[in-house]
Amino acid sequence: MTKEYCGVFAIFGHKDASRLTYLGLYALQHRGQESAGIAVSDGENFKVHKEMGLVSKVFKDEILDNLTGHLAVGHVRYSTTGVSHIKNAQPFWVEYSRGVIAIVHNGNLVNRVQLCHDMEERGAIFQSTMDSEIIIHLIAHSKKKKFEDALIEALSKIKGSYSLILCDKNQIIGVRDPFGFKPLCLGRLNGAYVLASETCALDIIQAEYIREIEPGEIVFINKDGIKSIKPFSPQKHSLCIFEFIYFSRPDSNIFGKNVYLTRKCLGKQLAKEYPVKVDMVMPVPDSGNYAALGFAQASKISFEMGIIRNHYVGRTFIQPSPKIRSLNVKIKLNPVKDVLKNKRIAIIEDSIVRGTTSKTRVRTLWDAGAKEIHMRVSCPPIKHPCFYGIDFPTKTELIADNCSQEQICKHLSLNSLGYLSLPGMLSSMPLPPEEFCTACFNGKYPITVDEKISKDSLENK
Amino acid sequence: MTKEYCGVFAIFGHKDASRLTYLGLYALQHRGQESAGIAVSDGENFKVHKEMGLVSKVFKDEILDNLTGHLAVGHVRYSTTGVSHIKNAQPFWVEYSRGVIAIVHNGNLVNRVQLCHDMEERGAIFQSTMDSEIIIHLIAHSKKKKFEDALIEALSKIKGSYSLILCDKNQIIGVRDPFGFKPLCLGRLNGAYVLASETCALDIIQAEYIREIEPGEIVFINKDGIKSIKPFSPQKHSLCIFEFIYFSRPDSNIFGKNVYLTRKCLGKQLAKEYPVKVDMVMPVPDSGNYAALGFAQASKISFEMGIIRNHYVGRTFIQPSPKIRSLNVKIKLNPVKDVLKNKRIAIIEDSIVRGTTSKTRVRTLWDAGAKEIHMRVSCPPIKHPCFYGIDFPTKTELIADNCSQEQICKHLSLNSLGYLSLPGMLSSMPLPPEEFCTACFNGKYPITVDEKISKDSLENK
Amino acid sequence: MTKEYCGVFAIFGHKDASRLTYLGLYALQHRGQESAGIAVSDGENFKVHKEMGLVSKVFKDEILDNLTGHLAVGHVRYSTTGVSHIKNAQPFWVEYSRGVIAIVHNGNLVNRVQLCHDMEERGAIFQSTMDSEIIIHLIAHSKKKKFEDALIEALSKIKGSYSLILCDKNQIIGVRDPFGFKPLCLGRLNGAYVLASETCALDIIQAEYIREIEPGEIVFINKDGIKSIKPFSPQKHSLCIFEFIYFSRPDSNIFGKNVYLTRKCLGKQLAKEYPVKVDMVMPVPDSGNYAALGFAQASKISFEMGIIRNHYVGRTFIQPSPKIRSLNVKIKLNPVKDVLKNKRIAIIEDSIVRGTTSKTRVRTLWDAGAKEIHMRVSCPPIKHPCFYGIDFPTKTELIADNCSQEQICKHLSLNSLGYLSLPGMLSSMPLPPEEFCTACFNGKYPITVDEKISKDSLENK
Amino acid sequence: MTKEYCGVFAIFGHKDASRLTYLGLYALQHRGQESAGIAVSDGENFKVHKEMGLVSKVFKDEILDNLTGHLAVGHVRYSTTGVSHIKNAQPFWVEYSRGVIAIVHNGNLVNRVQLCHDMEERGAIFQSTMDSEIIIHLIAHSKKKKFEDALIEALSKIKGSYSLILCDKNQIIGVRDPFGFKPLCLGRLNGAYVLASETCALDIIQAEYIREIEPGEIVFINKDGIKSIKPFSPQKHSLCIFEFIYFSRPDSNIFGKNVYLTRKCLGKQLAKEYPVKVDMVMPVPDSGNYAALGFAQASKISFEMGIIRNHYVGRTFIQPSPKIRSLNVKIKLNPVKDVLKNKRIAIIEDSIVRGTTSKTRVRTLWDAGAKEIHMRVSCPPIKHPCFYGIDFPTKTELIADNCSQEQICKHLSLNSLGYLSLPGMLSSMPLPPEEFCTACFNGKYPITVDEKISKDSLENK
Repeated sequence: MTKEYCGVFAIFGHKDASRLTYLGLYALQHRGQESAGIAVSDGENFKVHKEMGLVSKVFKDEILDNLTGHLAVGHVRYSTTGVSHIKNAQPFWVEYSRGVIAIVHNGNLVNRVQLCHDMEERGAIFQSTMDSEIIIHLIAHSKKKKFEDALIEALSKIKGSYSLILCDKNQIIGVRDPFGFKPLCLGRLNGAYVLASETCALDIIQAEYIREIEPGEIVFINKDGIKSIKPFSPQKHSLCIFEFIYFSRPDSNIFGKNVYLTRKCLGKQLAKEYPVKVDMVMPVPDSGNYAALGFAQASKISFEMGIIRNHYVGRTFIQPSPKIRSLNVKIKLNPVKDVLKNKRIAIIEDSIVRGTTSKTRVRTLWDAGAKEIHMRVSCPPIKHPCFYGIDFPTKTELIADNCSQEQICKHLSLNSLGYLSLPGMLSSMPLPPEEFCTACFNGKYPITVDEKISKDSLENK
Repeated sequence: MTKEYCGVFAIFGHKDASRLTYLGLYALQHRGQESAGIAVSDGENFKVHKEMGLVSKVFKDEILDNLTGHLAVGHVRYSTTGVSHIKNAQPFWVEYSRGVIAIVHNGNLVNRVQLCHDMEERGAIFQSTMDSEIIIHLIAHSKKKKFEDALIEALSKIKGSYSLILCDKNQIIGVRDPFGFKPLCLGRLNGAYVLASETCALDIIQAEYIREIEPGEIVFINKDGIKSIKPFSPQKHSLCIFEFIYFSRPDSNIFGKNVYLTRKCLGKQLAKEYPVKVDMVMPVPDSGNYAALGFAQASKISFEMGIIRNHYVGRTFIQPSPKIRSLNVKIKLNPVKDVLKNKRIAIIEDSIVRGTTSKTRVRTLWDAGAKEIHMRVSCPPIKHPCFYGIDFPTKTELIADNCSQEQICKHLSLNSLGYLSLPGMLSSMPLPPEEFCTACFNGKYPITVDEKISKDSLENK
Repeated sequence: MTKEYCGVFAIFGHKDASRLTYLGLYALQHRGQESAGIAVSDGENFKVHKEMGLVSKVFKDEILDNLTGHLAVGHVRYSTTGVSHIKNAQPFWVEYSRGVIAIVHNGNLVNRVQLCHDMEERGAIFQSTMDSEIIIHLIAHSKKKKFEDALIEALSKIKGSYSLILCDKNQIIGVRDPFGFKPLCLGRLNGAYVLASETCALDIIQAEYIREIEPGEIVFINKDGIKSIKPFSPQKHSLCIFEFIYFSRPDSNIFGKNVYLTRKCLGKQLAKEYPVKVDMVMPVPDSGNYAALGFAQASKISFEMGIIRNHYVGRTFIQPSPKIRSLNVKIKLNPVKDVLKNKRIAIIEDSIVRGTTSKTRVRTLWDAGAKEIHMRVSCPPIKHPCFYGIDFPTKTELIADNCSQEQICKHLSLNSLGYLSLPGMLSSMPLPPEEFCTACFNGKYPITVDEKISKDSLENK
Repeated sequence: MTKEYCGVFAIFGHKDASRLTYLGLYALQHRGQESAGIAVSDGENFKVHKEMGLVSKVFKDEILDNLTGHLAVGHVRYSTTGVSHIKNAQPFWVEYSRGVIAIVHNGNLVNRVQLCHDMEERGAIFQSTMDSEIIIHLIAHSKKKKFEDALIEALSKIKGSYSLILCDKNQIIGVRDPFGFKPLCLGRLNGAYVLASETCALDIIQAEYIREIEPGEIVFINKDGIKSIKPFSPQKHSLCIFEFIYFSRPDSNIFGKNVYLTRKCLGKQLAKEYPVKVDMVMPVPDSGNYAALGFAQASKISFEMGIIRNHYVGRTFIQPSPKIRSLNVKIKLNPVKDVLKNKRIAIIEDSIVRGTTSKTRVRTLWDAGAKEIHMRVSCPPIKHPCFYGIDFPTKTELIADNCSQEQICKHLSLNSLGYLSLPGMLSSMPLPPEEFCTACFNGKYPITVDEKISKDSLENK
């Protein structure tokens, strides 16, 4: 199963469109480190550059110089499958009967297999395994005269989560699926309009935040301004709660609300639900920082940064040889012995998936001389796979689906373990509980998933 | 003036010498991001690989596979001059009358100009502008029969700061100058000996810390074990206090003491000297984190991480075009508006050099909606250039040498500004005050500097 | 108008399939220097590697090591348009409803515009501007159940010249269009079958020549052996006579006959038609060598190599700056002054297209001190563009269409000029006159060309 | 033993100095394909670019744009040893007490070991194993005040063959050793002076040939014009006769005489000494072409080019796997079967060294169906190694030193074999016999060689 786990950005109406998109992607780099790409147009020409690698590696001065135009669309991609290939880098674009079109996608279609099969039967040839290519083929196959109608027809056939941006030579188009799984916001920079996954991408170019693109909304942005339509029947909102818990940047607002403050609330609630008597509260950096701050403040215990993160860890780190690996090298995170020695510690994790990294991490804290180690987790146990774009493993690999909390506590060699409750998590959110998808915690999937896909995810990918 | 501002590492007696050195350099990457290199020997062959770039870029699997041997010496380099070139990457090595020799150097010689001139007069030809090449030439020119004597003769001619590691095909040699400016420690990994600038490089390979190499000490490590000599007359110790304040990693111990805890003490002392009534204490990440924690704990005010650092910022970031630059882009650090809005803030800096980055940073906090901004600095005003390896600018550019504290406060648009006092800083240190060089604060230089160099630094580099 | 001007090679049934294909392409490099590619399969896996550049640059040891399989198909490409791009490199391949398929093509379709248009109307999306992609789309769109039938249906829709090789995971398929424009031969290497544009590609791997693939023939080669069908109605054979005159390698046999000897016959006939009284006969190297040998032998005049070719001239030669260009640099061919001085010279060209290079070349001979210069051309005047794969310019640029022989003689600053006659050329051929396409000489096109394409070629490309 | 086997070029007084040098090196590429380099100065700045690879690969537009100046010195290098490394690429250059100096060298010093040893004893450190570095060190070590005197002192210490060009920021200096082994000529391009190994490098930039630099001459070329000195005692001239036989380009004049015509004379003389009754005379391309033409003309037998050379053969050709190698692939040269079948052939080689390539080549002719094969060689048997810059193997590997002519004939599977006689060769030369070094034929070495070097060459390198 391919999962598209990504960040998207676009701007219309600025002569430095490609450089601003570059900056926007830079701010969204945490949403995908595998490949990056930008499509740009000046109304006449249309150019695309995409490559495997980080944004800063993919784009050099001379490349950006060449990407001239007043509209641009960009993408960073995270591959959730082992196979990653330039063929699957976005923007995906083609020249077809209506001219040129490019698309970037954040989300995951759940009926891709059926759609591909149907179109291949009719002679379609696919270049990639990307959801975004399917959408383009659906548009190309539509008999509707008007592009807008063809787009609506195509979107009405896809099922799943999608925050999309499309562009041709004259406009950019933002789309958010009717369930609203993934965030997409609208901003303005002087006269130009901006679309982005998170507000941190508006901040970096000093654009002003206007509003969220709403679930089920399509916005067309061109020289005539911005036009919004909502052609689909409304669905129960199903915002991805994991964007708040782990995925988004703390300095971003998503779905209209701030991530940092939300995480602090989670930490405070956690302190209420699972208080602990320790000498210090410390986060697993960096994602656990904010819940740990909330926990420490609520429990009036010292906050310490007992594990130091190496800032130069990149994707290209070479694995040490087998002999060295057994040394259990601390490439990324190093505990500070003089801080931890003989201390009772509460360590705050944002979430536990397989439990393997947590186990290793706890071991290094014992090695550093900790006296007691208590773990607190700022979300409930993850028991169900996600079909809408978060890369959880199959059910059998999720530790919380297979072990009791007690078993996990023992497995991780902890003195105590506390997970935030589902009601506690929802009450800490800045939006009403019914707005969120919580399928990974309680298995209530807002969109039915093809049986085959569902079965795969129970066993293995 | 060339300044060698670097990290060094070496290991003797392990068959994975080059991969362990790679890991050690990885941990020392913060000491130099310009170039990296490793020399390795198996007793017969001698190989060197060095390139411009980060450790993870310079070394690939196939390169490390080729660097076979049981002893290795590594280096990461920071160029303090505008000109950086592979010619100046280390290890510097040559084949000469005594065989092969390689050297890595952390520090700065103050009599390099005179030494070069003398040797060129006698027909010497230099390949680089590195201090380390001078040392090799001095060894080559020595008439002493025994290598050890030639080394001592050479070292007795150089003046300045130096923590060196040399190697030939059969041994590694660690040297620390008699003043002890720069750190160098000794560790053990099973039967192998390790030398490194900071203990974080021992941690990453799970080596055990043994002791510091002492000021004026030379250690020879080979198949017969470790031999130590102290051939120079003792000098007043002059440990670089800036290693504690800013330069070393918080998880390292240097000169035998922990950096994280020392910085917390600085923050606590600062809270005592300059208390402030605010809603939150926040650091300039990441170097201000630990003093800020100390300040917050001592003043019982909430600690918040109001500025978020982008983890993907690398060396290759492309400058935006002039038009975009005026947008004051927040590439590296982004303030969290919802956290800062309408708040009275104390922001903790580790130090102020030119004042330009501080000024910009304070502006972004005002823009984010702060109500009051008070800055506290965890060291005294820097008024004098460093000749021993820290890259401070010339005297005329040091803001504290040109402006009163009041003027600086106004210049940075702060509500208040407080610098830690010199006695306060020294009393927070884990070693006696007389152990340190504090020349950058009070101008008391432990080694006289050539007049020309000194004059240059008053004007421009 | 895209012209595909290329070399093709394939092998089935040898475990070193990709390395043998590499060698085959190496021998066919003169047929295309822009890009090279190989597709390979072991029956289960299917891999493709293609890049811009010469064969020796595109394929490195580690790449060939990875291309494991017992069947392989290869291609070298010459771009006749200014725009060259990796998108247009071959083999073109896709995964579609029938599995995987790859194709390489030598020739030029004349109804590509219409075919593309029709298929795009039905929703097809094209990745490239290559004829080979059209053929794949036609196969994918066919409703025929059996692959063989779908292939025949697809081929029956295309018009133009094509020598094709296709492959999937289990077989290679050779196709030659019913007119037989482009060569394609069959060979054997122990138990393996080989297909190649010219026999020099059999020689390099020491394969044995079996026979030509006949016009209109399709051969399927797989584990069951070789199967031949001829599903199309026969057409008047139209072998490209220019393959003998200029394009093929002299050591190749094409259409079953040797190129070197054919060119010698052309030279002998030329000596009969246009005798000349000179001190020496010399070729324009290297393509004029063999006609010049024939001419010299027939006229009993000394053969000399008065112009020396620089063997290191590659595609990447940097153009000198404008100031230097005026020096009329002799990068590629240098006349030997001491050989030419005060001599009466007959220089043998294989053909004259625009006349610009000939003009420059003649000037360098005058500069070298020649006393008389007589040019003899081993084919008739080229007056008509080629639509089947030879890169002649538009009609207005063909010097022979615009000037009389006398005018050309004067334009080139020659003492005399003689073109071989059309009957003379045909009588020198090793096959009957009616076998050949001679459209470029007499405008008799065997396949009618779309009006638009035809018109374009009258004006500009 | 390092052998420097190279081409040199320089120009003074032209604002496009680096591009003209690039062209000159392009023309001299046959003298060295391993590395290329150019040093350039505008009187103030001094820049060098050198890399492994062919001239066309090493220099790109942007690199030449950056090499601004009115004087330039260039070099192409052939490594005669297995080890080739960028460290040994030329120009070799240093900054030393007198400023900057660069040097390029064609030839081979025979007392390098002694010179190195002496200087290392005095503390000198060598970066490379190049003769040119030794010369620079000798200049640097000289106590003479004037540079000219230091240069003369340095040159008086070296023994061997050398055609050198040196430059600093203001002048270029040409030197030819007193024996005159290697060619070096002087030309003029408008007001600019040019130095080059062969006249083909003058031709390519349309420079006018002036004269040879004489044995033992030093020319200084700067803004004051050209100044010549001859500070050494004269020696018996010892021009390398192999430059005429094999090494130089046929379109070049060397030592003032044309190579093409000289080779034709060798062929004519060979026809006189060893006539043969055959159907055709053919060369081993391309070096045998001209002797073959002479042989064919003198014997009135048809000249044919029975072996075709692949023009795309470069240095990077990948070796086929062991299984394929046994196929005896014809990568570089392919015989034309239809031309050779049932023919009696005389094949002309320029020389036989080890005999291994000749053996393989003869086999391919038999395989192609030849009826008789007679080989004629345009120089006498090579029986002695060269110490002055030609890469012959050690004595034991020279086939003519170990086998009689009869044995060689049989070993190569020939019907007959004829070597040109020593008097025959000398009488075909355009200069008096006593001008040449013929050591490789008769062992009469003009300069005594260090015993150790001499001994090495008897055994192995």
